[in-house]
Amino acid sequence: MAAQGLDGLLLLTEPEVRYFSGFHTLFWQSPTRPWFLFVPAKGKPVAVIPSIGADLMRRTWIDDIRTWSAPAPQDDGISLLTDLLAPIAGGGGTIGMMKGHETSLRMPLADYERLLAGLPGLNITDATALVRAQRMVKSEAEIEKLAHICAIGSKTFAQMPKIAFAGQPLEALFRDFRREALRLGADDVPYLVGGADQGGYSDVISPPSARPLQEGDIVMLDTGATWDGYFCDFDRNFAIGKADDLSCRAHEVLWRATEAGLAAARPGTTCRDLFHAMQNVISGFDTSGGDIGRLGHGLGMQLTEWPSHAVFDDTVLEENMVLTLEPSLSYGAGKMMVHEENIVVREGGAELLSARAPRELPVI
Amino acid sequence: MAAQGLDGLLLLTEPEVRYFSGFHTLFWQSPTRPWFLFVPAKGKPVAVIPSIGADLMRRTWIDDIRTWSAPAPQDDGISLLTDLLAPIAGGGGTIGMMKGHETSLRMPLADYERLLAGLPGLNITDATALVRAQRMVKSEAEIEKLAHICAIGSKTFAQMPKIAFAGQPLEALFRDFRREALRLGADDVPYLVGGADQGGYSDVISPPSARPLQEGDIVMLDTGATWDGYFCDFDRNFAIGKADDLSCRAHEVLWRATEAGLAAARPGTTCRDLFHAMQNVISGFDTSGGDIGRLGHGLGMQLTEWPSHAVFDDTVLEENMVLTLEPSLSYGAGKMMVHEENIVVREGGAELLSARAPRELPVI
Repeated sequence: MAAQGLDGLLLLTEPEVRYFSGFHTLFWQSPTRPWFLFVPAKGKPVAVIPSIGADLMRRTWIDDIRTWSAPAPQDDGISLLTDLLAPIAGGGGTIGMMKGHETSLRMPLADYERLLAGLPGLNITDATALVRAQRMVKSEAEIEKLAHICAIGSKTFAQMPKIAFAGQPLEALFRDFRREALRLGADDVPYLVGGADQGGYSDVISPPSARPLQEGDIVMLDTGATWDGYFCDFDRNFAIGKADDLSCRAHEVLWRATEAGLAAARPGTTCRDLFHAMQNVISGFDTSGGDIGRLGHGLGMQLTEWPSHAVFDDTVLEENMVLTLEPSLSYGAGKMMVHEENIVVREGGAELLSARAPRELPVI
Repeated sequence: MAAQGLDGLLLLTEPEVRYFSGFHTLFWQSPTRPWFLFVPAKGKPVAVIPSIGADLMRRTWIDDIRTWSAPAPQDDGISLLTDLLAPIAGGGGTIGMMKGHETSLRMPLADYERLLAGLPGLNITDATALVRAQRMVKSEAEIEKLAHICAIGSKTFAQMPKIAFAGQPLEALFRDFRREALRLGADDVPYLVGGADQGGYSDVISPPSARPLQEGDIVMLDTGATWDGYFCDFDRNFAIGKADDLSCRAHEVLWRATEAGLAAARPGTTCRDLFHAMQNVISGFDTSGGDIGRLGHGLGMQLTEWPSHAVFDDTVLEENMVLTLEPSLSYGAGKMMVHEENIVVREGGAELLSARAPRELPVI
């Protein structure tokens, strides 16, 4: 903040408020109430939050907690924020907010405009790069949590031969997978997508259908499970009963692409380099390009975080970044296959957090 | 839109995009990509979305689907949106956006500012009231989905005597409750909060602790489970082994407050009236006021929706609104109790979607 001339950061989003305060609650799922954390250039953060959260915030390291009885559509924290920021505005000061890629404004836009109108001297600048640089490199405590949920995810996938079978509707498999992850210690499985079809799937973002699994199906599940507020995010492919040759080859190519990613993911490598390392393997098999736009991303308090393994991202990998490697390809008649592992970048190179997928497409 | 002189609505948030298009995916959980739906004053909506969603969008009623390969930090849909809106901006036209209470801007703020800068003639007005009026009143198809997930929630709570017991850590009860809801047909249980302590709980927003349930605990679980994209949202209180008198009285008061809410929730009643109907019962027992700020809210594609049963909300209830009744009170030494039912407002009055809680605090 000193280098960028910032008098503080105004944070509105769940991961940022939690990261700087320790405030952890599912209450964010209700869109009704905004929550604010101001991180001044000097001193401890100030929380400006609905009074329903005061007790929980008092258990964090934050001392200065300013509350209002929310919801209050006429003044949902705006006058409290105005009071807090008025001294900075009066001095022609500058605060940072998250305005950049992969961010959103988690407060009513009209309230934001009203806040600005009440603080005419205030300069607001984009602090995305600042917060991103901080959050991308994980502490050992964060890595421990991520390793824990990745291990639970791996154990859950190891149960697939028991829970997936021909005749089972895909939506029932989704329920059983979630139940298994919970049984094995996940707090929740907020994200679960996948696909299944003869000789390969073609859709990885729809809700699951009631179509029963059949012999010859390729089935993929991709899960974002959580433990203590941290996500795993990886997938696995399986064949039901028997596997067709083309899908086996696709799986082998993705496995090798991931090997190339694992070898490349060292401190000093750029995300663009990491993308090319994986893409070079894929392009020998899939010449169509595909439209995922990237081959992996950061992982932590969110299912997906910066950086992106993509041509546009020249982020240099650092020790203790936690990342996904997520090569994907198109093949056959409109089929696609995705594959994903979770890693932490260490001084000596990539360390797997997910149990490495087998090279050969497993048949169950 | 005609009455308000709008040339269209630009929608950015998951429930709004889904409501007007039918586009349903968990992919929104990744903050990486923005998704846009433009609803013109005349004709069918236009989707401006990452290409990864094109196949799924093609299965909705939307024909005009404009895509880009996301993520693309330099141009994440902005030039496509600019092209779409330029004719309106050129004519000095006006579009509506969700800027009001309980909304947020789900795109990077810097991209929004860049969009505005590229469309100098464009007027943007708040369309929250317009969309809110539409979404608050549910179709029979929506009510069917809500009734289905409320029934699953009720069946799950009916299993509490089997899954909750003295000695069980609260966090394990949370996992077992989620597993039970999934077994009984929920697609997911994204929201689950609660509390447990001797003679009453005092915290309803923290993640569950590892503290084992004890005889004399009052335990409360509040769940937002989903089915086909629609939520239930209600809670239940139980005593472990034995119930103290004060907690029994608190439960009885909340049950009676809910009865008053059920009687008042008819077409023509305002949300303020509904608040007072419940608050009048509570205030005989709890004179502290409390700080929840409201005694229930709308329910549907979101865990909480407009309106709010609160003094500030003069929304008039209409047939086919789906609501929660959520009286709460403080009692004893810093204890609180919450209670919640889900209803649909019919011509003749409130119709319960959740199986009515017993008048007496159940002991398990």
